[in-house]
Amino acid sequence: MSKSFDLLKPYLDKSAALDMALSALSFDFDTTAPKKAASYTHQAMAILSKESYDALMNNQVKELLDKCLNEDLTTKEKAIVLELQKIYDKLIKIPSELYNENRKLEREAQLAWEEAKEKSDYSIFQPYLEKIIENQKAFIKYREDDQLKGYDVLLNDYEPGFTVEVLDQFFELLKKEIVPLIEKVKNKNHKIDTSFLNRDFDIEKQREFSSWLANYVGFDLSRGIIKESVHPYTTQLHKNDVRFTTHYYKNQLDSAIYSTIHESGHAKYEQGIADNLTLTLVGSGTSMGMHESQSRFYENCVGRNKNFLGPVFNKLKETFPHQLSDVTLLDFYKAVNKFEPGRIRIEADELTYSLHIMVRYQIEKRIFNGEVDTVDLPTLWNQMYQEYLGVTPKNDAEGILQDVHWSGGSFGYFPSYALGSAIAAQIYNHLQLLMPIEEMLTTGDFDKIDEYLQTNIYQFGKTKTTQQLLKDMMNQSFDSSYYIKYLKDKYHAIYEEEE
Amino acid sequence: MSKSFDLLKPYLDKSAALDMALSALSFDFDTTAPKKAASYTHQAMAILSKESYDALMNNQVKELLDKCLNEDLTTKEKAIVLELQKIYDKLIKIPSELYNENRKLEREAQLAWEEAKEKSDYSIFQPYLEKIIENQKAFIKYREDDQLKGYDVLLNDYEPGFTVEVLDQFFELLKKEIVPLIEKVKNKNHKIDTSFLNRDFDIEKQREFSSWLANYVGFDLSRGIIKESVHPYTTQLHKNDVRFTTHYYKNQLDSAIYSTIHESGHAKYEQGIADNLTLTLVGSGTSMGMHESQSRFYENCVGRNKNFLGPVFNKLKETFPHQLSDVTLLDFYKAVNKFEPGRIRIEADELTYSLHIMVRYQIEKRIFNGEVDTVDLPTLWNQMYQEYLGVTPKNDAEGILQDVHWSGGSFGYFPSYALGSAIAAQIYNHLQLLMPIEEMLTTGDFDKIDEYLQTNIYQFGKTKTTQQLLKDMMNQSFDSSYYIKYLKDKYHAIYEEEE
Repeated sequence: MSKSFDLLKPYLDKSAALDMALSALSFDFDTTAPKKAASYTHQAMAILSKESYDALMNNQVKELLDKCLNEDLTTKEKAIVLELQKIYDKLIKIPSELYNENRKLEREAQLAWEEAKEKSDYSIFQPYLEKIIENQKAFIKYREDDQLKGYDVLLNDYEPGFTVEVLDQFFELLKKEIVPLIEKVKNKNHKIDTSFLNRDFDIEKQREFSSWLANYVGFDLSRGIIKESVHPYTTQLHKNDVRFTTHYYKNQLDSAIYSTIHESGHAKYEQGIADNLTLTLVGSGTSMGMHESQSRFYENCVGRNKNFLGPVFNKLKETFPHQLSDVTLLDFYKAVNKFEPGRIRIEADELTYSLHIMVRYQIEKRIFNGEVDTVDLPTLWNQMYQEYLGVTPKNDAEGILQDVHWSGGSFGYFPSYALGSAIAAQIYNHLQLLMPIEEMLTTGDFDKIDEYLQTNIYQFGKTKTTQQLLKDMMNQSFDSSYYIKYLKDKYHAIYEEEE
Repeated sequence: MSKSFDLLKPYLDKSAALDMALSALSFDFDTTAPKKAASYTHQAMAILSKESYDALMNNQVKELLDKCLNEDLTTKEKAIVLELQKIYDKLIKIPSELYNENRKLEREAQLAWEEAKEKSDYSIFQPYLEKIIENQKAFIKYREDDQLKGYDVLLNDYEPGFTVEVLDQFFELLKKEIVPLIEKVKNKNHKIDTSFLNRDFDIEKQREFSSWLANYVGFDLSRGIIKESVHPYTTQLHKNDVRFTTHYYKNQLDSAIYSTIHESGHAKYEQGIADNLTLTLVGSGTSMGMHESQSRFYENCVGRNKNFLGPVFNKLKETFPHQLSDVTLLDFYKAVNKFEPGRIRIEADELTYSLHIMVRYQIEKRIFNGEVDTVDLPTLWNQMYQEYLGVTPKNDAEGILQDVHWSGGSFGYFPSYALGSAIAAQIYNHLQLLMPIEEMLTTGDFDKIDEYLQTNIYQFGKTKTTQQLLKDMMNQSFDSSYYIKYLKDKYHAIYEEEE
């Protein structure tokens, strides 16, 4: 055991306790707090955030950290120390003046983005984006090392190991295979009826169904809660208090169902973290992409699977007997799998989703290669949407301004969404080889699936990287061909039947 | 402006932010968190509690505090410094070894009390109580000064200015006037029917009614929320986020109504704190007794007033038209004012409540005068219940073991409950002289009452003591004769009609 690590522990525990409080306050603010609480609550939260930062970012911790790096550590301690090292590296390499200036800029940029989106006028946001990119390029220069250069530095923050080299291959394959697939099945699309999803569905009944569904796919309601917010998300106080939100629309039945099952996937991951990792720096999912793989696994591979939908649709018909009396399982299955090339990422279906991400990846790559000027971004964006999805945004608001991410300097983040879907398909394929998964979904028996994900992914938290998890689990690294095959098989089957 | 106070401010702000987080976590735990969250959540909360304590209890703060005491301060600064001084005095005068030993003892004593109550066996709790009293006596010795001796030291923690001398007068008057009153009207009690309160009242409808009622009496729902817990209580994150709980029983309609209106009184006080005091050491109600006066004012003086009940009962009949079709306003008014000498404090009615407190006050006084041995307490308790209330507890659980307070060393706390009722009656009498309060209650016009309480009580937080508030408001100090008169007039009127 490392003596220095023992001395480090109180600092880590304090930071974890403060972060837990901040998560709780933040979730409370989104779901529960009265509307006029904002100003004082945020004032106090700012103090707690600073305390949490100061708890780790100080000379005593830095000294102990350096000592720990030269001492014998357990696997867990080592992971925690490396995580702390990563936080230090990122902050220490950037001059604090530039760092603080940039934080201020990002706050202003977010307001500018809001206004620009509201008025659908990119020119309001462009000067801020210009400056944000300039700062990000400066950050890259400070942070570059022998391994990581340019855009890879940013990508590494969200998904270590998934460099431009890996992502280029991934997106090239998507472009080659999925763009033609969409073209091929598009003309059969009108035959799938989704109108029954827009009938009147009582919100309270939807709420009960969502709770049933979350429990059905293995979200442990004795260690978690479900609330509501406009944009669904998952957060955790610790492994025994994992919280997610969903949203209910009276005339859009599938919205709550798939939000709930998506967030249940995230939440199960957090509930599965090992006891001795929770409330530490490595006590949550290992990366954005891996997290997204768990939510997409449940939302798409499982949640839009015909076998899975058998018992679920029965329960749904029990809940809404009148509204769904004339709807068959096949009708429902097709409706929730209908694809529609659109302009808005967050409304995209399973088939076209990753193409929305491809647009953003290609643009970010060009930005950090210095190949494009920010004033030309809307044109580039619209050209790519036309090329990949066959649609052109009607204005900036539904084009280049649709996502908040860039206003906060989150470059390199988007690819994780697409990687999540691809990793989910790879894991699903792997499980098909190990167990009779289709039968299990038919009977609603998730025990073996849960146990497998728990044993091979959830429990490790951040003590293994995505690539390590995949390697240890399947003896192979990330391979996007499974995703392509999954999409082709699935959509061919759905749309062949329409012929 | 005091320079030392400016230097003190970051410490105060940090402590306030941590306390806000702890209030939020605690309320969340009682009302929202999943049931298995306890262990990790409490582990993190213990760290935050220690941080909050350390934020103020350290040498830098002590030095600044001493400097502040010799500098020019604003009224607000002075109040904050005095509050901090009070916390220091209490802790510094007691040797930390004894203090910590006692905290440990209290934790054990609470478990022993739980077991003793469960088994209705005082002998399990007696040795712990013995030791707790011994420690409290030692604390008193350390804390005594020229002004405060003996039991007064403890009373002063909850209600400064209300010494044994003041309380003796108060309780003597109660004994002289209320004990005979109860005797006199008791035999007419059977004529009042309360059975309709036990019909079936849908919980969701009760919830809606409670929300309406809280809003009706002036609880601002844009700056507060209502949840549910077994024991109703009020807490605050700050003045714009005040939270209370109530509880609903399907077959006990009055329970939620009077819990809601009682807590609304507490909550309005917290919502009325001045902007510049919230999130400071003086940013909440000035004392237990003053707080209780505000809840009792709304629960009893207002909430059980026949004029007030006019529009409220109409709304209640709208909410439960079938259940209340045969009930008149007079029936309802009498039912919610029926008195019943009982054995349990928290179930007591307005008339007998303070007699329950009198038992506890008399016993505490004898304990700290060294006039009674802990082994004799159950006998003494039962004798007093027989003498004041005409009932004898059937066992220890519904006798001496009914309250948790003593197991946590909270001696001197109980009198505040009775003082609250008495102060409420005094304020009500005062308002009757200033404004046509009965007419206002008849029409549901609370504006002038709200404005008066806001201007004369709420806004000041802890910057004025109870006695100062009363003096500034009414040009007289605490006078329990108003309370006696209020009770006698009210109950004579109700029970005369029965003759």
